[in-house]
Amino acid sequence: MENETRNILCDLRDGRISVDEAVLKLKKQPFEDLGYAKVDLHRGIRQGMPEVIYGAGKTAEQIEGIAKSLLDNGVETVLITRLDSEKANALTSSLSLDYREKAKCGIIGKIPAPSGIGRIVVATAGTSDIPVAEEAAVTAEVHGNEVVRLYDVGVSGLHRMLSHLDEIMSASVIIAIAGMEGALASVIGGLADCPVIAVPTSVGYGAAFEGLTALLSMLNSCAGGVSVVNIDNGFGAGYLAGMINHMETKK
Amino acid sequence: MENETRNILCDLRDGRISVDEAVLKLKKQPFEDLGYAKVDLHRGIRQGMPEVIYGAGKTAEQIEGIAKSLLDNGVETVLITRLDSEKANALTSSLSLDYREKAKCGIIGKIPAPSGIGRIVVATAGTSDIPVAEEAAVTAEVHGNEVVRLYDVGVSGLHRMLSHLDEIMSASVIIAIAGMEGALASVIGGLADCPVIAVPTSVGYGAAFEGLTALLSMLNSCAGGVSVVNIDNGFGAGYLAGMINHMETKK
Amino acid sequence: MENETRNILCDLRDGRISVDEAVLKLKKQPFEDLGYAKVDLHRGIRQGMPEVIYGAGKTAEQIEGIAKSLLDNGVETVLITRLDSEKANALTSSLSLDYREKAKCGIIGKIPAPSGIGRIVVATAGTSDIPVAEEAAVTAEVHGNEVVRLYDVGVSGLHRMLSHLDEIMSASVIIAIAGMEGALASVIGGLADCPVIAVPTSVGYGAAFEGLTALLSMLNSCAGGVSVVNIDNGFGAGYLAGMINHMETKK
Amino acid sequence: MENETRNILCDLRDGRISVDEAVLKLKKQPFEDLGYAKVDLHRGIRQGMPEVIYGAGKTAEQIEGIAKSLLDNGVETVLITRLDSEKANALTSSLSLDYREKAKCGIIGKIPAPSGIGRIVVATAGTSDIPVAEEAAVTAEVHGNEVVRLYDVGVSGLHRMLSHLDEIMSASVIIAIAGMEGALASVIGGLADCPVIAVPTSVGYGAAFEGLTALLSMLNSCAGGVSVVNIDNGFGAGYLAGMINHMETKK
Amino acid sequence: MENETRNILCDLRDGRISVDEAVLKLKKQPFEDLGYAKVDLHRGIRQGMPEVIYGAGKTAEQIEGIAKSLLDNGVETVLITRLDSEKANALTSSLSLDYREKAKCGIIGKIPAPSGIGRIVVATAGTSDIPVAEEAAVTAEVHGNEVVRLYDVGVSGLHRMLSHLDEIMSASVIIAIAGMEGALASVIGGLADCPVIAVPTSVGYGAAFEGLTALLSMLNSCAGGVSVVNIDNGFGAGYLAGMINHMETKK
Amino acid sequence: MENETRNILCDLRDGRISVDEAVLKLKKQPFEDLGYAKVDLHRGIRQGMPEVIYGAGKTAEQIEGIAKSLLDNGVETVLITRLDSEKANALTSSLSLDYREKAKCGIIGKIPAPSGIGRIVVATAGTSDIPVAEEAAVTAEVHGNEVVRLYDVGVSGLHRMLSHLDEIMSASVIIAIAGMEGALASVIGGLADCPVIAVPTSVGYGAAFEGLTALLSMLNSCAGGVSVVNIDNGFGAGYLAGMINHMETKK
Amino acid sequence: MENETRNILCDLRDGRISVDEAVLKLKKQPFEDLGYAKVDLHRGIRQGMPEVIYGAGKTAEQIEGIAKSLLDNGVETVLITRLDSEKANALTSSLSLDYREKAKCGIIGKIPAPSGIGRIVVATAGTSDIPVAEEAAVTAEVHGNEVVRLYDVGVSGLHRMLSHLDEIMSASVIIAIAGMEGALASVIGGLADCPVIAVPTSVGYGAAFEGLTALLSMLNSCAGGVSVVNIDNGFGAGYLAGMINHMETKK
Amino acid sequence: MENETRNILCDLRDGRISVDEAVLKLKKQPFEDLGYAKVDLHRGIRQGMPEVIYGAGKTAEQIEGIAKSLLDNGVETVLITRLDSEKANALTSSLSLDYREKAKCGIIGKIPAPSGIGRIVVATAGTSDIPVAEEAAVTAEVHGNEVVRLYDVGVSGLHRMLSHLDEIMSASVIIAIAGMEGALASVIGGLADCPVIAVPTSVGYGAAFEGLTALLSMLNSCAGGVSVVNIDNGFGAGYLAGMINHMETKK
Repeated sequence: MENETRNILCDLRDGRISVDEAVLKLKKQPFEDLGYAKVDLHRGIRQGMPEVIYGAGKTAEQIEGIAKSLLDNGVETVLITRLDSEKANALTSSLSLDYREKAKCGIIGKIPAPSGIGRIVVATAGTSDIPVAEEAAVTAEVHGNEVVRLYDVGVSGLHRMLSHLDEIMSASVIIAIAGMEGALASVIGGLADCPVIAVPTSVGYGAAFEGLTALLSMLNSCAGGVSVVNIDNGFGAGYLAGMINHMETKK
Repeated sequence: MENETRNILCDLRDGRISVDEAVLKLKKQPFEDLGYAKVDLHRGIRQGMPEVIYGAGKTAEQIEGIAKSLLDNGVETVLITRLDSEKANALTSSLSLDYREKAKCGIIGKIPAPSGIGRIVVATAGTSDIPVAEEAAVTAEVHGNEVVRLYDVGVSGLHRMLSHLDEIMSASVIIAIAGMEGALASVIGGLADCPVIAVPTSVGYGAAFEGLTALLSMLNSCAGGVSVVNIDNGFGAGYLAGMINHMETKK
Repeated sequence: MENETRNILCDLRDGRISVDEAVLKLKKQPFEDLGYAKVDLHRGIRQGMPEVIYGAGKTAEQIEGIAKSLLDNGVETVLITRLDSEKANALTSSLSLDYREKAKCGIIGKIPAPSGIGRIVVATAGTSDIPVAEEAAVTAEVHGNEVVRLYDVGVSGLHRMLSHLDEIMSASVIIAIAGMEGALASVIGGLADCPVIAVPTSVGYGAAFEGLTALLSMLNSCAGGVSVVNIDNGFGAGYLAGMINHMETKK
Repeated sequence: MENETRNILCDLRDGRISVDEAVLKLKKQPFEDLGYAKVDLHRGIRQGMPEVIYGAGKTAEQIEGIAKSLLDNGVETVLITRLDSEKANALTSSLSLDYREKAKCGIIGKIPAPSGIGRIVVATAGTSDIPVAEEAAVTAEVHGNEVVRLYDVGVSGLHRMLSHLDEIMSASVIIAIAGMEGALASVIGGLADCPVIAVPTSVGYGAAFEGLTALLSMLNSCAGGVSVVNIDNGFGAGYLAGMINHMETKK
Repeated sequence: MENETRNILCDLRDGRISVDEAVLKLKKQPFEDLGYAKVDLHRGIRQGMPEVIYGAGKTAEQIEGIAKSLLDNGVETVLITRLDSEKANALTSSLSLDYREKAKCGIIGKIPAPSGIGRIVVATAGTSDIPVAEEAAVTAEVHGNEVVRLYDVGVSGLHRMLSHLDEIMSASVIIAIAGMEGALASVIGGLADCPVIAVPTSVGYGAAFEGLTALLSMLNSCAGGVSVVNIDNGFGAGYLAGMINHMETKK
Repeated sequence: MENETRNILCDLRDGRISVDEAVLKLKKQPFEDLGYAKVDLHRGIRQGMPEVIYGAGKTAEQIEGIAKSLLDNGVETVLITRLDSEKANALTSSLSLDYREKAKCGIIGKIPAPSGIGRIVVATAGTSDIPVAEEAAVTAEVHGNEVVRLYDVGVSGLHRMLSHLDEIMSASVIIAIAGMEGALASVIGGLADCPVIAVPTSVGYGAAFEGLTALLSMLNSCAGGVSVVNIDNGFGAGYLAGMINHMETKK
Repeated sequence: MENETRNILCDLRDGRISVDEAVLKLKKQPFEDLGYAKVDLHRGIRQGMPEVIYGAGKTAEQIEGIAKSLLDNGVETVLITRLDSEKANALTSSLSLDYREKAKCGIIGKIPAPSGIGRIVVATAGTSDIPVAEEAAVTAEVHGNEVVRLYDVGVSGLHRMLSHLDEIMSASVIIAIAGMEGALASVIGGLADCPVIAVPTSVGYGAAFEGLTALLSMLNSCAGGVSVVNIDNGFGAGYLAGMINHMETKK
Repeated sequence: MENETRNILCDLRDGRISVDEAVLKLKKQPFEDLGYAKVDLHRGIRQGMPEVIYGAGKTAEQIEGIAKSLLDNGVETVLITRLDSEKANALTSSLSLDYREKAKCGIIGKIPAPSGIGRIVVATAGTSDIPVAEEAAVTAEVHGNEVVRLYDVGVSGLHRMLSHLDEIMSASVIIAIAGMEGALASVIGGLADCPVIAVPTSVGYGAAFEGLTALLSMLNSCAGGVSVVNIDNGFGAGYLAGMINHMETKK
């Protein structure tokens, strides 16, 4: 932002533009800059970062339009989340789409080679939590992370989780995904020594209240290093995990 | 019930009472009998069972009056729950009261020797849950059960719980007490092979919502054999655990 | 667990295996053992115990695969819960399935002869609660319990319940199932002298809030010996009731 | 209302007032009349009906002022609800106050002789519900009803309630008061053949949620003839019960 | 109940039956009697009272079976509530059914001539509340009450309600039906001098929360004489209103 | 109201009607007048104001009937809200309907030229909020307001909103529409110096709880001048905004 | 904003400042300008507008410090809300404070003469709502509005409200304040033809849920022109009402 | 773990211990090891990490005892959270306590020099949120992080936040703390390109529902990289932020 402003000012000082022209240029700049500033960090500096399209509530035509526009502007990877198989089929005729059915995610372009501090573990309590987990895992992978999947390691069968103690304790970030009582986040949070992102899911019935119980439970975890995202928000967890796993690039 | 009815009818047949008197006696009988039936099971058949006084909302004088009346009628043991230390002090001048401060329970008379199928384990997630646990433990002890206390074995420090695996896996009944996210019940329920009574506590802050989160969490446990009582209801859990631990007497 | 460990150690002491081999064998053992420990109690010691498949969210093919695998491994009885009639039909071509439509349960293999301390009474407030009740009853039967069904004995017609006083008062365990206001649990809990497992159901409308009212109501029962499971969780109640009814085997 | 209008119109027709004066008089009349219409029914027609002062949030001086003003205007009986003993003491120096401590009600003037169709039964589940019950009972008595008190007849000791079957089945109106799970209303509603007014109370702890559970439970009663008032609203129940018990005066 | 008992006792006293036979006869009697006692009040004493079948969740065949059985046993009028038009069509081939589509009610047999203290006013806030209102109105009519319908008189158009002031103020009982904010009950309760039964409906969107807002609002009415039934419970309101409107028969 | 009353009185004074006739005429007048009073302000004084038909739950035939009746009575503009495209198609055969699909609104007659104090800004956080926004915008336009649409300016992309600072700060009234966390209202409320009407929408998933979170969030805005309407209530916001934007006509 | 930017640029062009100095000045400008822009509108343009200090959670010393600083900077009127009498007493020694006890508001400086489009009516349902009403009224008065107070005009005594029909129908803005069922807003919204700001209060007990019921009720009002602020937020309502009442100054 | 096991096995192979002794040693090992594993990571490997004592619910004596025990065992820094000033005073006589009153935190020992990837920004919406913020800030500082405090930058005064854009956009991790509507998290999440930990606070009144509204709002943030901890959980946020800020040590 500073460079652009400085250029305008130098142009003015040196008489290449008038005060009126400088006013006009500057007037639109701050907020555009503000926007670009963030965009830059996302796309400019960390070259090759994917763009994300939230597919729910958009028609196949709309998704196609946005995706093509992004690709035309040099974006190398596009991730489409909440994309049902019907729309995915409609898209494959015109786009080279890599559709991950379990994750309900479509990928256009190449997935970057894994980088970052370490591996992201995506753990679920049950098999019904897998769609949310896959959304998280694919999101993390598309953002350049190595992902380890530990599915169906819920606390009512503790030995299943403990048999994966090595993966848990050597993870860089863990995404703990559970519906019903959501106890997985607390148990993993107590075992692991890394940030744990808890994702409540709407899995369960009766007093599960479509994820509310798991959500409240996870917020009450007394294990250090646990934070929570919205119910079924696999994308948010995968994105944040990738961000934390690339913290060294901030230095 | 049949005997009493038969006596009335014989009295009528033999002219000792009139039809009017018989009608009156029979009219009130079914429900009175119903009442006595239960009382008998509680006090008559299982001799030596304690009577319980819920101390909250009663004055020391009222408690003293009820207790003396019970003792005068042959009750050998009286348990007073939710008894604060101030009232306990007031009672000790006139009654031989064994006051358990942590449990907020007072005991009059002797505690029966432990009997039953096995041992009842009372486990808590944290130290703040101990008052509820002690209410459960003392209730179970007063009803003739051996109690093993495992306090502060919450799931965020899983090794603490697992170091007591022997007690957990050999228990007859387990009372799992936890506030906050209440994950203890699920983890213990997954490990143990006996009935687990989960007691949510009002311990915690914020999204703990005074026990609601732990309650909902415990109800969603997918471990087999887990059931739940009201928030902070240590007495109810101790009483039920004792009942289950004496199931062999039902045979 | 101890035996297996001891064998490895003896092999080491006697030079049949090296320290490296012993390390490898022991490394994977504890948590597997932990798992088997529980499995043993369930299946090993109490021979003939059924395996349970939760049918909801699984395809007929998946259920068939799991069931066949269990049967191939020597399991004698398989219980499939939450199995709709369509999937049941699909299964009957390849499996010898005993389908209980009301309970939405399928049974493969023989139902063990009733054993245990006494009889389990399954009581419902209304006729709409029967599907949950049947899930509980079939679960208990498949786990070797004698079940007495008392349906439509809700408290707004108290005489219907009281005409079954004998069954209620001689039960070993009672499962009280009700939607709407859930008062059945309190009334039965006040009459009976055995553990009462309350199951709220999602029956009702308006302020029934899909079982929440019955759930809260049941948790507030002041009758001794009452505990609660999740809304519509007939399986959980039947499983726990069977566990309590076989407490004598713990001795 | 018609008479007053007619007088104005006659005055106009006969030239005693001008059209402008008639307009002014009529303009303010309808809503004033509306008000008086109701006041008349309450106080005019049914002579001797008590006035009620809601004592909570008013100082002793304010209450004294209102009461004196009412008495000066010919009101024979004044009922002051939610009046704590401190304020009651302050009032007794200047007013001839009959203070009912349990009900937290003060009465000035004479209580009318009981009239109405029959007797109003006020039943409570426990002893902690008695303050609400007394507010209901005193309200009904002050409005000229005979009241029968049945306290501590909760459903967890069904025999206690059933031993009062005569009172319940011969009542004109029943007020069923309960906290916790509120099952009393359903059971009484199923037994009785008269209107049942259910009053949830804030008695209980944990999942009683200060009366919410009892409220929801009572609203779900499937017994015919049950309706519900606000939590702890003894006055409202007593007032409505009295109104129903005097329905014959509507004929 | 007394007569039947007395007959048995006289038979015993006079030697017509033995003590054993008397025991047997009495043994089954109390609870049946308890049931009949209520049934008598409903059907015996007040001859011609209709029987009600709750149609929701029952097949046309089940409804037909129950209805025929009732008619065979001398019941003159049968009311079927929550009966959709499809089932109604199926029923009309075999039963002489008077189907009221708006009320979703079917009537078999004759509707008794209106009796009772006065007229029952059924008022709704909007046109969407009419189905609930019709269920209430038809229920009241079938139970022998004259019903006045005041629809769409919600408080946001106060003049519409006030133009019916005469009906409101001369009613015997008023049923006030409203969704959304439910203010109708308070306004009518403040105007009328008779019992007001408030019925919240699930009409509305957003913060109406399917009737919860109207329910809470109605429970908070500070107008005297207002009580509340469950959301959309037109039947309950109509039944209770009819009961109150026939209070004089209790004398 | 006064004129009509005065006419009646003059008729009486001058002998054209009797006192009885005057009583009758006056009896029904006040509340009808009350109604017309408001109607007058809406339609009489502010000539050309549109009538609104709430289309949800009405058939195309019913809507057509009401619309024609209004037009026959001289109404120049009719707005039909919550009108789905199917009904709109059915209506266009018989009415000259201007259907706005995004808004689900149909307009009959001409839209008045914009008047009022200034411009109404309708801002949404996301694209999914647009249907609610269009309902608000069309409502405001039909009531004679100039509307500026700022869509998809949610706070997670602050620069998008800030690039429209001019529109925001020069608005007469702002309608801030957002689902999910509803932060838009607070941010706009902090920037703008005019009344802000916040409309929560049911957009979002999980802990959005169908608009409840946005609703609560908006009610807590500490920015001055913000008030809130019901979830998804675009019409209410547009109507109120138009009312405020025409405040000068009140002077 | 443009002028300031232009000055900097001219300074640069003319060599009075360097490019570095210009960059620094411009960098902080947009957002500072943004801030000043609003401050200007509040204080600069509309000269004499009062400053508001939220007194809750601040000590008397802190309030004194802020107030003195404001007065030193030329502010003519300071409004302190949520100021209890104890702090008010502490302040009066050093400040010339006009303390309004009912409103819990303190005013320093002169109250501007009433201006604006018309009068603001502040109406309450009961006497307990008066503190919130006074906060609203004093806030509006301090911001230069004429306020009419209509207290205790709740809908359960409709005649009281209707006797003030003139004030209601001639108001510029109405603030409708009510706890319990909050019906006042709907009724007034239906009568009045101006913006109605509804303020739910925490007055009530039981199912009033500390204002939640009134809040939900008010949000569901189907009367046009009604919007809602937070529970007990008298200040917010008074501030917004004043803003609307001065809309003509926006032209 | 392997080393310890290997030692036991070597001891066995070499005859230094018997098989029985080896069994005993191995039996308790896995879970003890499990515990130590985590302890090591926390304290062993990352030398100098502070120990934390949760002060709420502990007496000054208990805190002193624990602290001394830790210090005696070589811990260099002890952080005591939720420590009120009274207890802090009691502790200072025996311990060299650095008490931070705003944070309600006590520190014993030296605070490590800041390390990690970058700076942690702690931002609050209002001044009432500062105690939670200070708990977060002190926790982060004690764990070796540089902290930048940005207090009172709530979104209703957007310019205040934007004037700190540099700090926000260059942060390593941001902790966004807000009560009421919690919009701060969304706005910061939209601006920043780093993980944002949102902390809802119980600040506010009415519909703030003691932090629930802020909590739900924050969970719905659509900005990438935002996660949430429990209401008022400053410690949890500070601890997690520190963990993320030291991610490079995981490599």
